[in-house]
Amino acid sequence: MTATNTTTRVQKLRELMKSPEYNVTAFVVPSEDAHQSEYVAECDERRHYISGFTGSAGLAVVSLESAALFTDGRYFLQASQQLDLNWTLMKSGLPEVPTWQEYLVKNLPAGSRIGIDPLVFTATDANKLETDLAKVGSSLVPISNLIDLVWDNRPARPASKLMILSTKTTGRTHTEKIQQLRKDLVKKGVAGFVVSGLDEIAWLFNMRGSDVHCNPVFFSYAIVTADYVNLYLQEKSISAEVREHLGSEVTIKPYETVFDDLRAMSSSLQANKQKILLGTRTNLAMAVALGKDNTVEARSPVTDAKAIKNETEMEGIRQCHLRDSAALINYFAWLEEQLANGVELDEADGAERLEQFRAEQAGFVGLSFDTISSTGPNGAIIHYKPEKPTAARINADLVYLCDSGGQYIDGTTDVTRTLHFKNPTAHEKRCFTRVLQGHISIDSAVFPDGTSGYLLDVLARRALWADGLDFRHGTGHGVGAFLNVHEGPHGCGTRIAYNDIPLVPGMTLTNEPGYYEDGKFGIRIENVMLVRKVETPNNFGGRGYYGFEHVTLVPVQIKLIDRSLLTHLEIEWINAYHAECLEKVSPFLAKDSPGLKWLQREAVSI
Amino acid sequence: MTATNTTTRVQKLRELMKSPEYNVTAFVVPSEDAHQSEYVAECDERRHYISGFTGSAGLAVVSLESAALFTDGRYFLQASQQLDLNWTLMKSGLPEVPTWQEYLVKNLPAGSRIGIDPLVFTATDANKLETDLAKVGSSLVPISNLIDLVWDNRPARPASKLMILSTKTTGRTHTEKIQQLRKDLVKKGVAGFVVSGLDEIAWLFNMRGSDVHCNPVFFSYAIVTADYVNLYLQEKSISAEVREHLGSEVTIKPYETVFDDLRAMSSSLQANKQKILLGTRTNLAMAVALGKDNTVEARSPVTDAKAIKNETEMEGIRQCHLRDSAALINYFAWLEEQLANGVELDEADGAERLEQFRAEQAGFVGLSFDTISSTGPNGAIIHYKPEKPTAARINADLVYLCDSGGQYIDGTTDVTRTLHFKNPTAHEKRCFTRVLQGHISIDSAVFPDGTSGYLLDVLARRALWADGLDFRHGTGHGVGAFLNVHEGPHGCGTRIAYNDIPLVPGMTLTNEPGYYEDGKFGIRIENVMLVRKVETPNNFGGRGYYGFEHVTLVPVQIKLIDRSLLTHLEIEWINAYHAECLEKVSPFLAKDSPGLKWLQREAVSI
Repeated sequence: MTATNTTTRVQKLRELMKSPEYNVTAFVVPSEDAHQSEYVAECDERRHYISGFTGSAGLAVVSLESAALFTDGRYFLQASQQLDLNWTLMKSGLPEVPTWQEYLVKNLPAGSRIGIDPLVFTATDANKLETDLAKVGSSLVPISNLIDLVWDNRPARPASKLMILSTKTTGRTHTEKIQQLRKDLVKKGVAGFVVSGLDEIAWLFNMRGSDVHCNPVFFSYAIVTADYVNLYLQEKSISAEVREHLGSEVTIKPYETVFDDLRAMSSSLQANKQKILLGTRTNLAMAVALGKDNTVEARSPVTDAKAIKNETEMEGIRQCHLRDSAALINYFAWLEEQLANGVELDEADGAERLEQFRAEQAGFVGLSFDTISSTGPNGAIIHYKPEKPTAARINADLVYLCDSGGQYIDGTTDVTRTLHFKNPTAHEKRCFTRVLQGHISIDSAVFPDGTSGYLLDVLARRALWADGLDFRHGTGHGVGAFLNVHEGPHGCGTRIAYNDIPLVPGMTLTNEPGYYEDGKFGIRIENVMLVRKVETPNNFGGRGYYGFEHVTLVPVQIKLIDRSLLTHLEIEWINAYHAECLEKVSPFLAKDSPGLKWLQREAVSI
Repeated sequence: MTATNTTTRVQKLRELMKSPEYNVTAFVVPSEDAHQSEYVAECDERRHYISGFTGSAGLAVVSLESAALFTDGRYFLQASQQLDLNWTLMKSGLPEVPTWQEYLVKNLPAGSRIGIDPLVFTATDANKLETDLAKVGSSLVPISNLIDLVWDNRPARPASKLMILSTKTTGRTHTEKIQQLRKDLVKKGVAGFVVSGLDEIAWLFNMRGSDVHCNPVFFSYAIVTADYVNLYLQEKSISAEVREHLGSEVTIKPYETVFDDLRAMSSSLQANKQKILLGTRTNLAMAVALGKDNTVEARSPVTDAKAIKNETEMEGIRQCHLRDSAALINYFAWLEEQLANGVELDEADGAERLEQFRAEQAGFVGLSFDTISSTGPNGAIIHYKPEKPTAARINADLVYLCDSGGQYIDGTTDVTRTLHFKNPTAHEKRCFTRVLQGHISIDSAVFPDGTSGYLLDVLARRALWADGLDFRHGTGHGVGAFLNVHEGPHGCGTRIAYNDIPLVPGMTLTNEPGYYEDGKFGIRIENVMLVRKVETPNNFGGRGYYGFEHVTLVPVQIKLIDRSLLTHLEIEWINAYHAECLEKVSPFLAKDSPGLKWLQREAVSI
């Protein structure tokens, strides 16, 4: 991993900033696009372009004198390798490091004029920031995106052909979903809702695209009111099939025209004293177009509805995880054999072969994120992506961490396993076992209705803490149903926002504690789970108790387990899990295949 | 437990409310006194007087039409028994029940005039409430305390003789503490601090009183600035000894005159643009006297300093817990023998005998709270207090729960044990074991610097949740050093405020998970612990890991343990704990005494 020379582009940006047309003393470049996507199309990778840092999360602030890149613990190592000397790395989450908002208020000179592109900022964030900046006489200046202006050969916005999903996989028609949404809007007393999240739109209309790498979404906006549904699509994405699927209920309009329509709505809303609901992740430009007084802000009801999977979706999620587990097992068997035979393979070769195994599975559409195939020290770079020619050779003497996932027509997968192909050290085994104990503790947790993933997070860390170990990322995130691999609103981790969203049956959640030793190795064990109601001998409180159903079924490498650290309940969990892997995944592996043999050897009792 | 007939007093109150002098549509009666004490002197038991409910936590709202009593899960059963038909019980914490603030805003008619006594309301609460009420056109009206006006034969305010503590037990002189406080004030950029919490003043000046039942405090206020220290005391509490102890550094003034002094400060503060720090628990009347613009609000620095015990205090806490554990063991041995001999004893007889055993111990001053000695169903009334003649006979066939504590010259204790004198049912054993597992999980937790008791709380509940059980109170609270048995700012529980205060070495914390089956039994296992630094094999994050040292050493009844539910680590914990009880408490029990025999029989391995 090497740094990009950003001297010229940063210089060009500063010249624009100083120009009378813009006249700003700083420009803020978040990772997100106009839809607040976590993963964005190449044309929207502005923060990557200006800083050289490729991680999925981060924000750049370029002032006339300095350039700061804020990112979280998953990316400290990666960012320190990818940033050149123009940049200062701000390690978000460390107690002495300001948030980027605090930085703008306190570290930049008072009276700064801070430029932002209102398309890539949420109204919520911008309003809060504006108030804080005002206290020191600084201001937020909405301008064009200056990165686009300095970006030579910026790629075009993609516009993929859309895929129509049948109710057999979605469980509900888009008409039913829109009906439900309209009921939510009536309850909230609003006249309409602007859908701006790409995965929200894909879910609501039961269509998928491929505009964003690994995320089956398409550039679009939608407006839903009691009277009409407008779907704004790029022209190239519109087809007769799409028109037929959507029917007369949905009016298709050009992507770019949504802002004109919002501006046009503004006066009638005001006259009728009606409000439009905007999700908290809707961009500032939309709020401005509608007129701030005509809007109410709340978490998107589509996000909330999408998070709770129906029975059809849950069954699809179970099924695709069986096939996906089989693919991963085939890959591990193959990799082990190659290494045993002394074949030289680098991390990217491994990732490529794994993708082939996935592609053999029914319903495979693509990867759900770039495969993390990492040997030794690279495993400690939490979101490492091996790329030719810098990918390291997979060293059988080191810990190998593989985090990967697929998009299938019936669901999205996300799985991490950590393996050692020779003799792990006692320290590696102890760390692995502590991570595994956290994983088991989350997997087997039972909790009353109303419990958030914020509260459960400690269960993933407790065994690690006992050894003075920890990890600097969340314990789990929601996963879409053939949609984005990360989805909200819930999650399990130290983000206080998770405390507002209780886990309820039908939600997906990953369970992925880890431990990372910089320069040495990384460990992570990750399954996807469904939240489900569980039967308990009592029902104190009367509102039911929930637990998890793991849908990922790949054995946990026994070689890395220090059995002496485990309780009998943890051992029973491992044995039951392995029995389940063997029973449920064997049918998906060819007779006498290396994969089946590997599964039979690994999915055993300890 | 029986209800008080409140018809006449509520009627008299409503007449006053309607009178032109006050003209309010509702009057709010919190539990607290002018110092926001949790436990108050009899003359301040206004909420008890008007409602008949004797619990330590609760708030009454009397409007012209209705009377509502808000209390939390610890007191649902008790309140339902003590309130007469004039009252509606509002079960705080249940999802469908509004907070009392929401009730004032939404359930009372818009435009209500809501009377409060500014002495018993914090400025923080009043300000927030005022804003919320304004939205519906209601208002907060500070008036005299109407309860005092309708209260026939209201007791006089007590003024006890003060006890001077030596540095041998406090570890630091009051001069040193004041010096530290002044440094804090400089850091915060304020000219002075008003100390209003009774335990804060007792701690700061190294004196104790007995104005409040079980709480060794005395009615007082203090003002500390860079130039002077004023201590406001009731005349009867002032003695030559007190004057000598405080020295020339501290000016003693009459209790009532603090408000005049605050009013007098107001103009010079304004002229010099200086601010006075008020703790978030300071009453509204003080903020008004100073002038709101002349104050800054923050958590009291004295509360924060007091919470972290010094080495001398910690050693005192350890020592008094040894003697207190011996007293409790003597009591359990005695009680068991009485019941075995068929002696008829009621719960109050038990409590009385336990107090005698405590009184035999060196350094005993009094009880730290009213002993909860409860048999069978009474154990499910979480803060039950047995009183003649209604106390029930202790039935050896039922679960017996005893929560008690003492004030000693070197510390304050708080301990709960649950016993069965005959044959517990399988269900009782299973519930007890689940509570014990939660207790062990908290006791043995290791956590990084920065972790709050809010986050650890789930560890106390996890084993209970697995069986669909839970408890409706916090898991732990701070305990004073020969001071109030409940002290902040930290705690372990579901109150989100606890999340702001990381646990740090030197803090005390109780560990008291429980389970309560209405009409059947109550279970609670409670120790006092000290937060301490622990050595871990690694130190990820670099800021150290903490754990707990339990100072309560009374065996957990083996008869009630369902061993089959336990892991080997839990069994090892019990065995080690029992060995520690035997080793450390035996020296405090007389040779051949029933207590020593009981300890030797009970403090064994399982």
